[in-house]
Amino acid sequence: MRAVVVEEPGGPEQLRVVERPIPEPGPDEVVLDVVAAGVNRADVLQRQGFYPPPKGATDVLGLECSGVVRTVGADVTRWRPGDPVVALLSAGGYAEQVAVPEGQLAPLPDGMDPVQAGGLMETAATVWSNVFMLGDLQPGETLLVHGGASGIGTTAIQMGKAFGATVVATAGSDRKVEACRMLGADVAINYREADFVEEVAGATEGRGADVILDIVGAKYLPRNVEALAVGGRIVVIGMQGGTRGELDLSRLLAKRGSVAATSLRARPAREKAGIVAELVESTWPLYSDETLVPVVDTVLGLDDVAAAHRILDDSGNIGKVVLTP
Amino acid sequence: MRAVVVEEPGGPEQLRVVERPIPEPGPDEVVLDVVAAGVNRADVLQRQGFYPPPKGATDVLGLECSGVVRTVGADVTRWRPGDPVVALLSAGGYAEQVAVPEGQLAPLPDGMDPVQAGGLMETAATVWSNVFMLGDLQPGETLLVHGGASGIGTTAIQMGKAFGATVVATAGSDRKVEACRMLGADVAINYREADFVEEVAGATEGRGADVILDIVGAKYLPRNVEALAVGGRIVVIGMQGGTRGELDLSRLLAKRGSVAATSLRARPAREKAGIVAELVESTWPLYSDETLVPVVDTVLGLDDVAAAHRILDDSGNIGKVVLTP
Repeated sequence: MRAVVVEEPGGPEQLRVVERPIPEPGPDEVVLDVVAAGVNRADVLQRQGFYPPPKGATDVLGLECSGVVRTVGADVTRWRPGDPVVALLSAGGYAEQVAVPEGQLAPLPDGMDPVQAGGLMETAATVWSNVFMLGDLQPGETLLVHGGASGIGTTAIQMGKAFGATVVATAGSDRKVEACRMLGADVAINYREADFVEEVAGATEGRGADVILDIVGAKYLPRNVEALAVGGRIVVIGMQGGTRGELDLSRLLAKRGSVAATSLRARPAREKAGIVAELVESTWPLYSDETLVPVVDTVLGLDDVAAAHRILDDSGNIGKVVLTP
Repeated sequence: MRAVVVEEPGGPEQLRVVERPIPEPGPDEVVLDVVAAGVNRADVLQRQGFYPPPKGATDVLGLECSGVVRTVGADVTRWRPGDPVVALLSAGGYAEQVAVPEGQLAPLPDGMDPVQAGGLMETAATVWSNVFMLGDLQPGETLLVHGGASGIGTTAIQMGKAFGATVVATAGSDRKVEACRMLGADVAINYREADFVEEVAGATEGRGADVILDIVGAKYLPRNVEALAVGGRIVVIGMQGGTRGELDLSRLLAKRGSVAATSLRARPAREKAGIVAELVESTWPLYSDETLVPVVDTVLGLDDVAAAHRILDDSGNIGKVVLTP
């Protein structure tokens, strides 16, 4: 099969399409024929040498895909060859085939185009596990989403609105700000022009954000604490603005707030399966009736993987970039 | 009635015993004759001018007491004059009488000496709300308690052990370390002589602490993150080591950890009542059968309030200092 690996840590030119054997399923694994694979910021970090795959995972890039079940392991009971599915992967999505533990599969939502679904799973599982499970966002609360036009951001805006929250989003261009509004954000801010702390205060009568989903890290930490409501929760899932930040504990204590930092990829398969199960139960009906719609920026073939990464390097995308092997 | 207030922010010499009118109960309040009032670090901070009482609260010091119900408000149904109780207060404990919302009262645990119970409530509610409700400590997990010989610390060690956790405690003298061990700590460390990160690693086969109850703040923040287990929760309730610390989000993310900072005093009465209800349900049987025992260091009269504060200023106490008006 054809698959994408990294030759040496570096730029998009280091991505190589290589020939690999088709994986065999372990006893509780399923092998898929991949239809489409989402490109994520974590793949860019892995390409740059900053985010090695977990122990035991393939070096083929890719954290999510859509596809069709090809073969199943001896202990697999829930899936049969031919089933259309989406998958949360530890690695291996940029390929014609991939092996995945059965608990990390979900049925393709009814009526959804499988190419559009290629970038669904990692993004949806990340938002669900961080905003709803860890952040415990409640109806009537306010969610602040940084990077609102990213794959994660477009999903977080839609899910926040679908579950009854007020959503404030930040983005880096007027075009992206407009996209955030179109997706339902109550307030969208160009962070190059406006201070999100003030805008959140304005949108909440000074109360602040109950949950902040952050991809910036250190650079935003002090202002995220300022933007927080009493009892608010900051969840950091990216560090594009550095890793070491100043935390003013007295300000955090005045808010009775918390800062969590998490990732999905390194979790054990059991935890991933738990997240997928909750995600499907809570959101699949909303994907089927198109309350939630995966936003796809660009679809490219496997040979165009370098171009796909360049789009993320330039932060030019609104929604996901997906590859079709 | 006699009551203690602060003349000017400063040392223990600024504490004054003054004459005040006996409070009248609001519709959902109870007025107690105070038997004993606990002295807390927060009272020291208030004396120094750093921790003003919440809006609407009396300027009389004191966050907890034991006592006997004297009068009840028109809407109070659960309490009658003569009932022996303990109370979580927003202020006002250092006095002969105090008014308190009925939800912040609990019955004196069966068989407990009311003087010993004077320092029970703030401490127990703080540990319960932070270690068990917010920190979600589970049986088999490891709890790291900083300041293990303090009122909070002695309570946290006992509750951690009673609910099936491994407990590691730090303290600042060999005498205090010994007290932590006597109270049940599996490992107790003199932080002047040993590195708690290494000791926690040693006690957990390198896994780290699942919950850290911290009173030090900024100075310990980087090492608390290092001492954390995967999925671990740091709960900061004091900042004796400064307020602004460096948080390495990449280290926190590698642990999938969180840092929360909270206080009990500023919460609305409804939340306090919820904490008290859960605390009583979960721990009162353990106080009655002496699985949990409030540790009292010193009992002093109201006129000796300056001496009581000097003990806390010098961190000389093992367990609580209580005042008997």
